Amino acid sequence: MIKNIAIAAALVIVGANADLVEKAKEAGLKPIPNSISELLKVIDNPKNPITKGKIELGKKLYFDPRLSKSALISCNTCHNLAIGGDDNVPVATGHKWRQNPHHLNSPTVYNAVFNVRQFWDGRSPDLEDQATGPIQAPVEMAQHPKVAAEVVKSMPEYKEAFEKEYPGEEITIKTIGKAIGAFERILVTPSRYDDFLRGDKKALSDEEKEGLKTFIKVGCASCHNGIGVGGGSMQPFPLFGKYKYANLGDFKGNKNGMVKVPTLRNILQTAPYFHNGATYDIKEAIAIMGENQLGKKLSEKEIDSIATFFKALDGKKPPITYPVLPTETAKTPKPDLN
Amino acid sequence: MIKNIAIAAALVIVGANADLVEKAKEAGLKPIPNSISELLKVIDNPKNPITKGKIELGKKLYFDPRLSKSALISCNTCHNLAIGGDDNVPVATGHKWRQNPHHLNSPTVYNAVFNVRQFWDGRSPDLEDQATGPIQAPVEMAQHPKVAAEVVKSMPEYKEAFEKEYPGEEITIKTIGKAIGAFERILVTPSRYDDFLRGDKKALSDEEKEGLKTFIKVGCASCHNGIGVGGGSMQPFPLFGKYKYANLGDFKGNKNGMVKVPTLRNILQTAPYFHNGATYDIKEAIAIMGENQLGKKLSEKEIDSIATFFKALDGKKPPITYPVLPTETAKTPKPDLN
Repeated sequence: MIKNIAIAAALVIVGANADLVEKAKEAGLKPIPNSISELLKVIDNPKNPITKGKIELGKKLYFDPRLSKSALISCNTCHNLAIGGDDNVPVATGHKWRQNPHHLNSPTVYNAVFNVRQFWDGRSPDLEDQATGPIQAPVEMAQHPKVAAEVVKSMPEYKEAFEKEYPGEEITIKTIGKAIGAFERILVTPSRYDDFLRGDKKALSDEEKEGLKTFIKVGCASCHNGIGVGGGSMQPFPLFGKYKYANLGDFKGNKNGMVKVPTLRNILQTAPYFHNGATYDIKEAIAIMGENQLGKKLSEKEIDSIATFFKALDGKKPPITYPVLPTETAKTPKPDLN
Repeated sequence: MIKNIAIAAALVIVGANADLVEKAKEAGLKPIPNSISELLKVIDNPKNPITKGKIELGKKLYFDPRLSKSALISCNTCHNLAIGGDDNVPVATGHKWRQNPHHLNSPTVYNAVFNVRQFWDGRSPDLEDQATGPIQAPVEMAQHPKVAAEVVKSMPEYKEAFEKEYPGEEITIKTIGKAIGAFERILVTPSRYDDFLRGDKKALSDEEKEGLKTFIKVGCASCHNGIGVGGGSMQPFPLFGKYKYANLGDFKGNKNGMVKVPTLRNILQTAPYFHNGATYDIKEAIAIMGENQLGKKLSEKEIDSIATFFKALDGKKPPITYPVLPTETAKTPKPDLN
C-alpha cells in the first residue's frame, strides 16, 4: 500500500514534469540542440560557414587589443568571456575612458548567436556585421577601419590565416568581422535547463521547476522564448506605465521605439541589468519587468521563484585556450592613445 | 678524400659550436632548466611554494578585472599574455586612461620570475609583492586594497580556494598578491636558445650563432646574462654619454640612480623598448644600448647580427585555459568608473 502510494506520487511528479516540459514548449521555449548537426543548423551562417580555422582566427582577433586605436581594448574587454560574456559596469566604457553616449550597457556575447538582430536597437543583422561596429566606435575601440585592416595585414600569420579561410577576399574590416563572427557563433552555453527541456526530469530542482512554471504563467516567456530565452524579437520598452529608471540615458530604441529583448541565459552573471545597466539587483529587475512589460505587480514569491529558476540558466562555457597572438612587424601601425 | 674533408669541416663546426656554448656559459648565460625539479629550484618561492591550486587561483585573479576599481582592468590588461606579456603602448595606461606619471613602460611578465628585483627601480623583492602594487596604483587598477579583498571575499568560490591554498591566512591584498605571484612564477618561456645552451647544435641557425657571438663579444652579456638574459642586476642608465630619449619621462632609477636590466627573452615581442618605451625599433634600441651602456658605436653588421640572435629568444608560452571566473554576489563591491 505504502509502495503504491509512493509510485502514485512519483507518477504525479512525472506527470507534472511532463506537463511542465509540454507547457514550456507551448510557450516557445526551446533547448540548445545537443547534436552538432542540429546545433549547426541554428548557429551557422550560410554566408560565412563555420570552420575550425575561422573559429581559431576569430578567437585571436576577438582577444587582440591591437585592433583598437590604443592597442589596449579588445572585443573581450567589454564582452569578457571570463565573466559572463559582458563587463560589470553599467555603461560601456572604452577609448580614453569615454562612455556610451546613450548610457548603454554591454550585452553578453554568449548565446548572442540566437539573437534575431544585434545591438540594443537591433540595427545589425548578424554577428559578422555587429563585430565591425565596436572596433570603429569612437567610444569603444575607436579604430579607423582601414587601420584595423592594416594592423591585421602587417602580421604574416594573420595574413596567411585569412588567405586560407577567406581565399580571394581582401582583408578589410568586413572580413575581420566575419572571422570574429564565426568565433562568436560557437559561444553557446547549454545548461541544466536544456537537459530538462529534453526530458531529464532531475535536471532542475523542484524550486527551479516551480520558478519555470511561474516564469511561463506570469507571461515572461511571451518575449523571453526561443532557444535564447530572449533575443528573438524587438519590443516596446516600457509597454506599461513608467520605467523607474527612464531618466538614466537617452536610449529610445530603434526608430519605432523598439528594444531588443535580451537573452536570459546566464542572466545571474550579467548584472547590471537593462539596456542602461540601471540595477545590479535581479529581483528588482524582475519586478520592473513585471510592471513595465506585463503590466502587473509580481508578488515577492513570484519574483523569488523566477530568480530561482534563473539559476538553471547558468550554462557551461566552451573551453577556450587563451591565444598566443602574432607579433607586430615594422609595418604594424603604432597605437595611438589620443 | 671528399668525405674526409666533409668530416673535418663538420668537426670544425662542432668545435666552433662547443666553443660558443662554452663562451656563453663563461659569459654567465644559462638555459632555463628542462627538468621540473631543476626548474622549481629557480622559480619557486620557499615562502609561497607553488601548488597546482595556487596556480589556478592566481590565474583567475590575474585575469579578473573586478580587482580593479572600475572592474575593467586586470593584470592581463598591461601584462597581456597573448602579446608577449606586456602591452603595446609606450606608457602604461590605466584607470580613467591615466598614464604613468614617470612615463614608464609596462615590462613583460614572462620570465619576470628570473628578475632579481621587480619594477624598473627594483623596489619590490618578488612577484608576490609586486602584484599588490598595480592593483592599488591610482594610474593602474586604482583599487583600495581593502576593497580588492572584499571583492574576492564576496565570492564563495574564491573564498574556498583561498581557504584551501592559504589555510589560516586572512584574504588581504597580500594573500591576493601571493596567489598571483604563484601563477606568474610558471610563466617561463624556454626557446631554441636554451636547447642550444644545453648542447643541441642545430637549435640555432648559423646567423643566430654569429649573433650570439657578437652579443657576447661586444659586451651585452655583461648585464644581460643569467637565466633571464637580463633581470639579474640593477645598473646605471646611461653609463656612457647622453641617452637620446632622456627628455622622455622623468624616471631616474632608484635612489642610487640604478635601473633594472630587463630580460631579453621574447624581446622581439615586447616593443616599444626601454623603461620609457622610447622606440619600437629593436635596431635603434641595440644601437643606443651600445652607445649608452657599452660606450661604443656598434656597426650596422653587429646590430643586425644581435637582432638576428634575438629571434632565438622567442620562447614557447605555457598553454593557458582562459578562466571562467566566479560570479559576483550581492556583497561584491560595485565598480566605480570615477
